[in-house]
Amino acid sequence: MKFELKAHLRCSGAVVRTRTGTPEGGVNLSDIDECVAYCNKELLKKGAPPGCGAEVVRWKVVDERITLEIVSDRFVRAHDALLRVKKEFARLLGRYRIGLRGIEIEDYKIALEWEEGAEEKEGLRIRKLPFVKEIRHRKGSLELVLDVDESSLDKKIPDRLIRLLEEKKEANRWKGKSEHWELIFESEKKEHYFDKDPTEAMIQRDWLQHAAGRGQYVYGPQITQIFRAFEKILLDELLIPLGYNEMVFPKFIAWDVWKRSGHAKGIYPEMYYVCTPKSRDPEYWEDVIDYFKVTNEVPVDMIMEKIENVGGMCYAQCPPFWVFLQGKILPDDILPVKVFDRSGTSYRYESGGLHGIERLDEFHRVELIWIGKKQEVIDHAKLLQERYRQIFSEILEIEWREAWVTPWFMAQEGRTGLAESKEVGTIDYEAVLPYSGKWLEFQNVSVNGYKYPSGFSVKLQSGAELWSGCSGVGLERWAASLLAQKGLDPDKWSEKFRSIVGELPEVFRFL
Amino acid sequence: MKFELKAHLRCSGAVVRTRTGTPEGGVNLSDIDECVAYCNKELLKKGAPPGCGAEVVRWKVVDERITLEIVSDRFVRAHDALLRVKKEFARLLGRYRIGLRGIEIEDYKIALEWEEGAEEKEGLRIRKLPFVKEIRHRKGSLELVLDVDESSLDKKIPDRLIRLLEEKKEANRWKGKSEHWELIFESEKKEHYFDKDPTEAMIQRDWLQHAAGRGQYVYGPQITQIFRAFEKILLDELLIPLGYNEMVFPKFIAWDVWKRSGHAKGIYPEMYYVCTPKSRDPEYWEDVIDYFKVTNEVPVDMIMEKIENVGGMCYAQCPPFWVFLQGKILPDDILPVKVFDRSGTSYRYESGGLHGIERLDEFHRVELIWIGKKQEVIDHAKLLQERYRQIFSEILEIEWREAWVTPWFMAQEGRTGLAESKEVGTIDYEAVLPYSGKWLEFQNVSVNGYKYPSGFSVKLQSGAELWSGCSGVGLERWAASLLAQKGLDPDKWSEKFRSIVGELPEVFRFL
Repeated sequence: MKFELKAHLRCSGAVVRTRTGTPEGGVNLSDIDECVAYCNKELLKKGAPPGCGAEVVRWKVVDERITLEIVSDRFVRAHDALLRVKKEFARLLGRYRIGLRGIEIEDYKIALEWEEGAEEKEGLRIRKLPFVKEIRHRKGSLELVLDVDESSLDKKIPDRLIRLLEEKKEANRWKGKSEHWELIFESEKKEHYFDKDPTEAMIQRDWLQHAAGRGQYVYGPQITQIFRAFEKILLDELLIPLGYNEMVFPKFIAWDVWKRSGHAKGIYPEMYYVCTPKSRDPEYWEDVIDYFKVTNEVPVDMIMEKIENVGGMCYAQCPPFWVFLQGKILPDDILPVKVFDRSGTSYRYESGGLHGIERLDEFHRVELIWIGKKQEVIDHAKLLQERYRQIFSEILEIEWREAWVTPWFMAQEGRTGLAESKEVGTIDYEAVLPYSGKWLEFQNVSVNGYKYPSGFSVKLQSGAELWSGCSGVGLERWAASLLAQKGLDPDKWSEKFRSIVGELPEVFRFL
Repeated sequence: MKFELKAHLRCSGAVVRTRTGTPEGGVNLSDIDECVAYCNKELLKKGAPPGCGAEVVRWKVVDERITLEIVSDRFVRAHDALLRVKKEFARLLGRYRIGLRGIEIEDYKIALEWEEGAEEKEGLRIRKLPFVKEIRHRKGSLELVLDVDESSLDKKIPDRLIRLLEEKKEANRWKGKSEHWELIFESEKKEHYFDKDPTEAMIQRDWLQHAAGRGQYVYGPQITQIFRAFEKILLDELLIPLGYNEMVFPKFIAWDVWKRSGHAKGIYPEMYYVCTPKSRDPEYWEDVIDYFKVTNEVPVDMIMEKIENVGGMCYAQCPPFWVFLQGKILPDDILPVKVFDRSGTSYRYESGGLHGIERLDEFHRVELIWIGKKQEVIDHAKLLQERYRQIFSEILEIEWREAWVTPWFMAQEGRTGLAESKEVGTIDYEAVLPYSGKWLEFQNVSVNGYKYPSGFSVKLQSGAELWSGCSGVGLERWAASLLAQKGLDPDKWSEKFRSIVGELPEVFRFL
């Protein structure tokens, strides 16, 4: 890695005594020389291995500007070096009552080791990078010409840019490889009483109707009663016995939440975006309203000019919960905390094609969160697994399997592989769909480590590490699994489940 | 009203025999003269009072084009006249094997009676109108120069434009006048045990925390338990005894739903807009992801270019239900149908300032819908009113009043006043908030007439008119009303309510 930076320090007045300048004030050139020499010898080597670091290779003073050219390796990167030199110069100039107004970056080039043709060969996408004016290929290296200013340096843009390239290389190494998937449990085989697509069957019986949006249904009384039976099973068999308390989590997610949860790193292609009006003034909207009234068409292009994006709809259900605890310190004795939410919809912009209730844009989920010290959280995940197994084998009587997969929060940040800690990760629950032979993921149990407490700055009074886990139960996915294996006829369901559901209501008939 | 239209009929070949043209084919000018004379005498007077209608005042034929100038009053509007004349010409030209390709509008002016200075005096906003190039003021009239083509005529744009202006005048007449509000019931006065803002009090006790978005909270275990107690009361006292069945209504609302419900006429300033990605391809989003990773800031301007508006989040809760019945014919014997939904959040982009849980951007509501013949629907609304009164007086023991107001569906279309039918309308329920002395609307009961069945094309087998009603119970509004009057201490609640809520859980404490 090589960094080459040319920058100007803007000062409050002429820096050196010139023949035409005022005799009073101004620095001796020899002082500057000395300062630069000190920087090169000491300041720009600090923290770097011997022989490494940065160096001011050229400098010049014209009127109010000190121009510096700095070259470095990766140990004291040129932009960090510049900030160190700036401080030193501020001290020197201060003695002469000259202020340091700011930095102008004239030119900044970073050369990285780069295998020739890596883009084509590995499918890396680097043609356009933020804060980069130009990307040049040199033999064995890639040269980035940056477009940065002082505030970009404060924000560590060059470092983040280098990390981005490394991440792209890393992500690429995983590309093509399938997601991590490791079978950890398999239920006994079950007799299947049905070989049809349950969504199609439900549509035929008017249990549901496709709604006006993509991947969205209106659920009639029968299937709603089945959803509520699932909730009752969860409550009676798991949530109440294990001491869970209900909460209501937000369903609109502001960007700040996804910045903290890491979702802002990756969910863009799958999000439902939420925008709010730039103004609430009815006059501001009158042209849109007039257009609609005259055409009976909604002018979505006009609308796009009048709204601004502020976040999106619930994607993963647990992140917005953490705002409740954000920045707080918890006494140890309230642990473990166990809460759940079932207060609304989640959204995914799913790939095209119809998948019925198995793959929806709008779906309903009960989300469990538990919080505690490391071992507590790990142990509770095991307890949940047991309870779920009981529910699936003794009440729903379905055929399912469990797999250790890439942690959901990594997957949703666009990462693959496994977490560094072996205790952190996700178990996916999958049920076979006899009509297609495919396996459907219908819920998960995850130990998320300290990721969320850390992202939302939640601490324990004792200073011990706070961990958390979560588990999302998809009501439509449970229904798809059960009904695909057993069909819509309650006679084929287990007696236990049938008695929990009760008699299915007949409300609508159509001609 | 005066309409002046100049248009060209484009034909498939030269229309008349010319000296240089082919001797074969082509119409005699005298035939055209005769055709125009017939139109002026018969065709363009049909349906108009004597002496009224349209007239072709000039015509000309050049090559493949017949140019027509039509003047009319409001009885046979010039654009309708043009379509009549076009048909007649098609018949004439057909005899000569000349086809009629289409219409070009060169100029279309409409003059409307208009009080001088109406805009300034009445605050009418007409400076910009869709499909209008220019607006000119003449003495006592307003001249609109239209920008329309043939398809605009097919879509009746000129007629809709005139109606829009009439609506603006009408709406203006109501402006300044307060909304309709007529007291119809008042409960007895109750002793109030609390004089504080309940939201503030709940925040102090960590019952809720403001979420990351505007007007949005994360609800802790205690207040969630109170919400669920409200639902239980609704279920036990009203929904189950009255034979309601639960359904799950969509919460993302596609534009088509709001076009049918009428909301597309008015809710723009208050909507939460939903946009979906223009592409799901990760490559399409890589620059956004790169930008975020390098800056830790979400580039909302870049995002706005990559998404498109497809609708909004649930505003009124009942419209998306109607998709379940859309285009269907119901047998009479399934009536009355009674369903409810409590499956998610509703959104309003509320005006600024903090209003606690009394006025939220994101809130939770149980929505009841009943459908039947006219009298059934009216009678059921009365039954509901009785049940609600029992709940408020005997279980919640609050002080409230009921008022007959502008129907909610009219208000949400930007209209005021009352419905034409006296049986159609909305009762708002309001509770006094002792800490501010203000009255808070906490729910409503509405008879919506045939509006929804008509908007979504739902019919009865017998042909009888299908009516519907709806009632929305705001959980946060119930909580605000109860807690503002009685405070957070269960000792001050009615014994009945206290026993339904049960003991409030203590889950969180913060240092």
